[in-house]
Amino acid sequence: MNLPSKILEEAVEQLSGLPGVGKRSALRYALFLMNEEEVKVRELSESLMRLKTHLHRCRHCHNVSDTEVCPICASEKRQRGLVCVVENVQDVMAVENTQQYRGLYHVLGGVISPIDGISPSDLEIASLVERVRTGVPYKVEEVILALPTTMEGDTTNYYINKLLQPLGVKVTTLARGVAVGDSLEYADEITLGRSIAHRIPFEG
Amino acid sequence: MNLPSKILEEAVEQLSGLPGVGKRSALRYALFLMNEEEVKVRELSESLMRLKTHLHRCRHCHNVSDTEVCPICASEKRQRGLVCVVENVQDVMAVENTQQYRGLYHVLGGVISPIDGISPSDLEIASLVERVRTGVPYKVEEVILALPTTMEGDTTNYYINKLLQPLGVKVTTLARGVAVGDSLEYADEITLGRSIAHRIPFEG
Repeated sequence: MNLPSKILEEAVEQLSGLPGVGKRSALRYALFLMNEEEVKVRELSESLMRLKTHLHRCRHCHNVSDTEVCPICASEKRQRGLVCVVENVQDVMAVENTQQYRGLYHVLGGVISPIDGISPSDLEIASLVERVRTGVPYKVEEVILALPTTMEGDTTNYYINKLLQPLGVKVTTLARGVAVGDSLEYADEITLGRSIAHRIPFEG
Repeated sequence: MNLPSKILEEAVEQLSGLPGVGKRSALRYALFLMNEEEVKVRELSESLMRLKTHLHRCRHCHNVSDTEVCPICASEKRQRGLVCVVENVQDVMAVENTQQYRGLYHVLGGVISPIDGISPSDLEIASLVERVRTGVPYKVEEVILALPTTMEGDTTNYYINKLLQPLGVKVTTLARGVAVGDSLEYADEITLGRSIAHRIPFEG
């Protein structure tokens, strides 16, 4: 792109560094901001900086938080013996939105992926094992592995399970099966196969 | 969305103010920035602010520019008697990319649209008429109307033409027709109709 200004070019360069944002979208954002009031752009700019300067990771579960211990870990209303292991912050939000889970979380920050150079030491796996071993901040009775059903997710599940087995904690994983509302015809074979293998009592 | 942090929520709110960015994308950007190095986020944040504090509009053509007069208006190699009227900065870039045009521009900053509350006085129309009338900075021999082929674009064309006619300047508009590489079968009737009505001598 042949931009008429260095300042515009730099902003486009910076904005197209965001995930999934191409040069064309970045230009659209930059021109939009250029036409916004200065106070609005300042608000945006400052709120982005605060993501680095003021946002915490919860000391226990590594979820994002405004405080050192997140509201979920701090809440007395949660089942503190349950820990749901998820890949990232979005997954915490997805599980929370179901309103079906009242336990705690542990955010790994990714899954093991040799291709992307992500090894166990890059993830919050050691801290999970420590959490189960020491019972700090709360004694863990069950670890629910809720990682994505991908090769990387499965590898990570396997790796974590191997570390947790000697500690005598119960390890479970999410039920896999045909989604609610889906017809069998369009379910893939592996999912449908698992649905049959792990069939459950009919609730009439 | 049920975000675990006010700071994150605020950043998502701000980012989803960008055109075409929903809450979900905004969250993705915010979490991405949270994991970036502080210096990178600062660079982004500062470059956005510079869009407001350091970017100019060219005094003559209203294109964005780092200087008071843009390089196109300042260039002695351009045909200064030709002024191409476009809706916005992206359109200048589109025309420049053809490398077929060596004249100057006039960026209106939009088109007349009563529905969106955009009237002629919100656009750089008076300054265009002034430019033609006074011959400042350069005498204008031809005004090329290159606005979008929409009702708003046509209205604006009509409005500008009416103001320019008394000044005795030549007013032209872009050729409309079947796009290069398109088959007739898929062209809409209006475009194909205009292609026939405004047919041109065959260049063998």
